[in-house]
Amino acid sequence: MATERARRPEQLRVVRERKPLPHYSFTCPFCPGNEHLAPPEVWRSPGQQGEWLVRVIPNKFSALARGGQPTWNIRGSYRTINAVGIHDVIVETPDHALTTALLDHDQVFRVLRCYLERFRNVISDPRVVHVTIFKNHGADAGTSLEHPHSQLIATPVVSSHVRNRLHEAMRYHDEYGTCVFCDVMHQEISDATRIVDATEHFVALEPFESASPFSTYIYPRRHMASFGESLPVELEDLATVLRNVLAKLYWGLDDPAFNYSIRTSPIENTGVKYYHWYVSIIPRLTRIAGFELGSGMFINTVLPEEAAEFLRKVDVATMEKTAANK
Amino acid sequence: MATERARRPEQLRVVRERKPLPHYSFTCPFCPGNEHLAPPEVWRSPGQQGEWLVRVIPNKFSALARGGQPTWNIRGSYRTINAVGIHDVIVETPDHALTTALLDHDQVFRVLRCYLERFRNVISDPRVVHVTIFKNHGADAGTSLEHPHSQLIATPVVSSHVRNRLHEAMRYHDEYGTCVFCDVMHQEISDATRIVDATEHFVALEPFESASPFSTYIYPRRHMASFGESLPVELEDLATVLRNVLAKLYWGLDDPAFNYSIRTSPIENTGVKYYHWYVSIIPRLTRIAGFELGSGMFINTVLPEEAAEFLRKVDVATMEKTAANK
Repeated sequence: MATERARRPEQLRVVRERKPLPHYSFTCPFCPGNEHLAPPEVWRSPGQQGEWLVRVIPNKFSALARGGQPTWNIRGSYRTINAVGIHDVIVETPDHALTTALLDHDQVFRVLRCYLERFRNVISDPRVVHVTIFKNHGADAGTSLEHPHSQLIATPVVSSHVRNRLHEAMRYHDEYGTCVFCDVMHQEISDATRIVDATEHFVALEPFESASPFSTYIYPRRHMASFGESLPVELEDLATVLRNVLAKLYWGLDDPAFNYSIRTSPIENTGVKYYHWYVSIIPRLTRIAGFELGSGMFINTVLPEEAAEFLRKVDVATMEKTAANK
Repeated sequence: MATERARRPEQLRVVRERKPLPHYSFTCPFCPGNEHLAPPEVWRSPGQQGEWLVRVIPNKFSALARGGQPTWNIRGSYRTINAVGIHDVIVETPDHALTTALLDHDQVFRVLRCYLERFRNVISDPRVVHVTIFKNHGADAGTSLEHPHSQLIATPVVSSHVRNRLHEAMRYHDEYGTCVFCDVMHQEISDATRIVDATEHFVALEPFESASPFSTYIYPRRHMASFGESLPVELEDLATVLRNVLAKLYWGLDDPAFNYSIRTSPIENTGVKYYHWYVSIIPRLTRIAGFELGSGMFINTVLPEEAAEFLRKVDVATMEKTAANK
């Protein structure tokens, strides 16, 4: 935390001219009526009269080949595996003009139910050992497609990054007999200064070790290693919290670019006592540079306590009402 | 490597309008004559008649407090240390209009000698346990200052990222009795497909595991854990290689934004057999998104073999001559 460089949270507000998006775009492969522009559908949440509310299609520019078996290749110090697996696009709404923060609660719940159904479906593929569900919003977050969508990538390997996180959590559990994520969540609830939102089943907070401004984690209160263990009542509640956090970012920081991802355990670690899944939301307000790339340390100019206070104060209901009356 | 999404290296060439920079800017704190706009100088490579050729000043917006002792604070699961240490800016040339790729060999050598002298100086501070020397070039690489400059940050902690890298290298050494970096370098020299440049003392290559297009590493051939162990003859040679690689990126990809950093061992690991310092150059041609942030895996659309071939073919001397005749 570079307090000598500290900036008020609102100084990171993105001020820019924005033109409203159309509700339908003729060239958008995700808009209703343009389904022929995308690969054949693999899942849908049906609407009325043959329409869809949420729709899943294979990514046209897939990072992984859908067919084939994973094969390790070892030569000297180098190991490779061919990139097979599943790469889905989840179209979150038929409306081109919306963004996740502006979807109503039922629609966010449909999207989360879609995540869970697809998650449970793809892990029945024996090649799949890990699943990442994520969303890129805005050009600074790595997407050029406006239509609200998220993605699911199911891989035949666990990255060393995920393994390290698991390993550290396992060591903590062996040492203290508890889940480090549960311990952190309880400490945060008692500290209260970094909490953004708290409901019956979830806690949204700015992590103590925030690497960048407004990084937000959403933890389930109930200990679960895998997102796949979630109950319907928990998903309902997550829809409320996720929508609220995204709306606070949207209204408070003027629709910043962001990425979110569900950080769940590898499939074989489902049910373990030492790991705990969570949603990580990273607004892309600053850029990592040579120091971060070289040292692995991150300079953050906004204290998580100030970011949390700022987000707590964003009154989503009033902002929505004012916008609707315009 | 997403070969299904693969792009030809030249497709990442940045095409943009650029206006030539002035040789002197009235408001630039790094231009000669404006020294009063920056904090007092801590080092210089003297030129003629009281002028300077390379100059080091404390960073005006330092990430670390220069004074004070590092103090650990432990509360529950949280540990902090106050951010004390050294944060220098190295002004690489008096000429505002240049960029590292366009400096002549002697000037690049002066800059590298400055790195080494500052490195040796700051490690005499007992608070310093690790030093990162790095450069940000271009807005996409996190800098807004045009005047060619690099930075040095000396910290009172080693990051878990650096520790993990060391730990893996140590395990490899314990297992095989050799330095993993030396082994990789020798395998690369024998494969030849990913080599960009090779001189008496250094090898520049696109790493087998390139996480992003045109990531380039420069390894010293002689085994050394710390940059601080470099000999003058090696620095002379590094000036040639570093300048050549940066010029190939500059002319081949039209002056892309990039970060470089010297990835050296922590001070206390100077001289160890298992670690090997190197320069990492990361052009900022693509952006990491939700999948990378969530999974710790990186999708690269340019094969390192194709990037290496592309860079080998960039004829810097001819490009420079053509530009000079314009």
